[in-house]
Amino acid sequence: MSIAVIYGGTRANGNTEQLAEQALAGLEAERIYLKDYEIRSIEDHRHSEEGFQDRGDDYNAIIDRVLKHDILLFATPIYWYGMSGPMKNFVDRWSQTLRDAERPQFREQMKAKTGYVIAVGGDQPLLKGLPLVLQFQHIFGFFGTTYGGYILGEGNRPGDIMRDREAIRKAVLLNDQLKEQRS
Amino acid sequence: MSIAVIYGGTRANGNTEQLAEQALAGLEAERIYLKDYEIRSIEDHRHSEEGFQDRGDDYNAIIDRVLKHDILLFATPIYWYGMSGPMKNFVDRWSQTLRDAERPQFREQMKAKTGYVIAVGGDQPLLKGLPLVLQFQHIFGFFGTTYGGYILGEGNRPGDIMRDREAIRKAVLLNDQLKEQRS
Amino acid sequence: MSIAVIYGGTRANGNTEQLAEQALAGLEAERIYLKDYEIRSIEDHRHSEEGFQDRGDDYNAIIDRVLKHDILLFATPIYWYGMSGPMKNFVDRWSQTLRDAERPQFREQMKAKTGYVIAVGGDQPLLKGLPLVLQFQHIFGFFGTTYGGYILGEGNRPGDIMRDREAIRKAVLLNDQLKEQRS
Amino acid sequence: MSIAVIYGGTRANGNTEQLAEQALAGLEAERIYLKDYEIRSIEDHRHSEEGFQDRGDDYNAIIDRVLKHDILLFATPIYWYGMSGPMKNFVDRWSQTLRDAERPQFREQMKAKTGYVIAVGGDQPLLKGLPLVLQFQHIFGFFGTTYGGYILGEGNRPGDIMRDREAIRKAVLLNDQLKEQRS
Repeated sequence: MSIAVIYGGTRANGNTEQLAEQALAGLEAERIYLKDYEIRSIEDHRHSEEGFQDRGDDYNAIIDRVLKHDILLFATPIYWYGMSGPMKNFVDRWSQTLRDAERPQFREQMKAKTGYVIAVGGDQPLLKGLPLVLQFQHIFGFFGTTYGGYILGEGNRPGDIMRDREAIRKAVLLNDQLKEQRS
Repeated sequence: MSIAVIYGGTRANGNTEQLAEQALAGLEAERIYLKDYEIRSIEDHRHSEEGFQDRGDDYNAIIDRVLKHDILLFATPIYWYGMSGPMKNFVDRWSQTLRDAERPQFREQMKAKTGYVIAVGGDQPLLKGLPLVLQFQHIFGFFGTTYGGYILGEGNRPGDIMRDREAIRKAVLLNDQLKEQRS
Repeated sequence: MSIAVIYGGTRANGNTEQLAEQALAGLEAERIYLKDYEIRSIEDHRHSEEGFQDRGDDYNAIIDRVLKHDILLFATPIYWYGMSGPMKNFVDRWSQTLRDAERPQFREQMKAKTGYVIAVGGDQPLLKGLPLVLQFQHIFGFFGTTYGGYILGEGNRPGDIMRDREAIRKAVLLNDQLKEQRS
Repeated sequence: MSIAVIYGGTRANGNTEQLAEQALAGLEAERIYLKDYEIRSIEDHRHSEEGFQDRGDDYNAIIDRVLKHDILLFATPIYWYGMSGPMKNFVDRWSQTLRDAERPQFREQMKAKTGYVIAVGGDQPLLKGLPLVLQFQHIFGFFGTTYGGYILGEGNRPGDIMRDREAIRKAVLLNDQLKEQRS
């Protein structure tokens, strides 16, 4: 069982990252910081004659790295009660991969994975982060991906998250579970 | 009462646009197609020393156009059970405007507006589009913006939306309401 | 295709009933007013030795009437952002029927049906009624029942619903659809 | 700061009760088992001439006990993705209390309280229990009651909940918080 964490944050060492790293302590994981790559938004060509065009960015390299792993952690700050724009652009591009002749197994590969959501926000995330949790329920449901769980944490200023005892303990529990699955 | 419609779609004349135009028939409205502009994702500098930097893109010009209007229609295709990446990037940037010395009235201006959501998707949008509806509930709630209503329509192939009688009738009703408000 | 409407309201000719009757105009339907029957709350005996006991009330007669039909309309006023207590007690008892040796086909029968939700409330039902819509998504999902759709209407005082043009038009649309299915 | 826990379960010592008691360990709390009382469903007389009638049951005695406390734990098994029927009937009756001349401070009293939700279910409660969490968001929001938090646990057979480490730890954390508030 190998792990990838996809970071949607736009600052280094933000609260979301700190929380996710608690869940990953002592585990090998591929860390993908979306902010370090160029991932352009999708252009919907599902029904155009020419079909989807290569967008000449880093997306394909990233999705190939993601697909190698069994467990995916989507770790995003809660921006405006949803995932960050960079993460949304990344997810949106899956519509292109679904029609990508070079990645014909995409749907089956995603189905075989287990996904987790880790999200930190400043405005009552345990309540106002729920639309994001529900959205991922449908995203994972589309593929049949197992929804392993989610952690919603509270924080604004860098480091705040370490004071959210409930979130930290959930991350430690997730760490235990991931370690058990590895063995 | 003046109207702006913010289009989050990435193809011309898509289902979402067709639906929104039903709601706007015979009305003057400023049409903003996000796909035609460069709007970069936010870089979170809420807590960095230097603060937010100008991102050198079209965002500020767009938000200034939006803020002139009383009624805002957020019209987005449903991509992966949420608003499109381009629209999310646009919304994310509001965090920057909230701290923009040149736009000190942003919060109060947004509070005074009425927002509508128009969204079209292909996978049970009346159910699986609800996280998006709930997300906008929190977005509008943040400012105190009036949530005028939402229309969820179904469509995949271009033109599909015209066969969604319920969505079309809701758009016609909204058109009536907007015309009443104008007078 | 035969229709049953299960009314959860506690007053005669309430807004929810008026709205549902718009959807049923000109159609034969079995009308079940839960308020006219004694339906006791479930007593959870899933794991007790004696198992579920007959509660000596009207529940079994009612569920047998419901099960004869192909299309079920759950029509409830929105009380405290959910279905009415009487309707909840009725639904809760399904846990007993799932273990009822005299109704061994209950799960399969429910799966074959199409369910609709019609609900009227006074406090922003299009937004605050959504937890109820989501709850029925899970209820229907449990069985595999088709979720035909839902109508959320606004009203407090008797008759208010007739001024909710959007709800009324949705009911008329549903009426059209039900008529088409009948033929 | 005094505490009341309102139990909506219908069996003794069920999973929900066990979980809630973890949160209450070492604390004084008034325990109200709704199953031990007769609480009839509301009859909606908000708009009838005669108004609400006394229903001759235990409701008023119960609500008076509840209102004495500052912190309310609503502890319910998840039945069909919502609160139990007995708890729903209890909550529905608040509409009567809102118009009860003998309890004119009901709204203000509820506003001053902090509410928690503890709910245990057998079918993916962390995801499918969210409509219940959202419903209480609106219920508490109606009064302005502070939503202190919620714990969703997993369990079917009696005692299952003790194996849900995440839920148990959350209950222990809540216990800590309640103890801090007491002092």
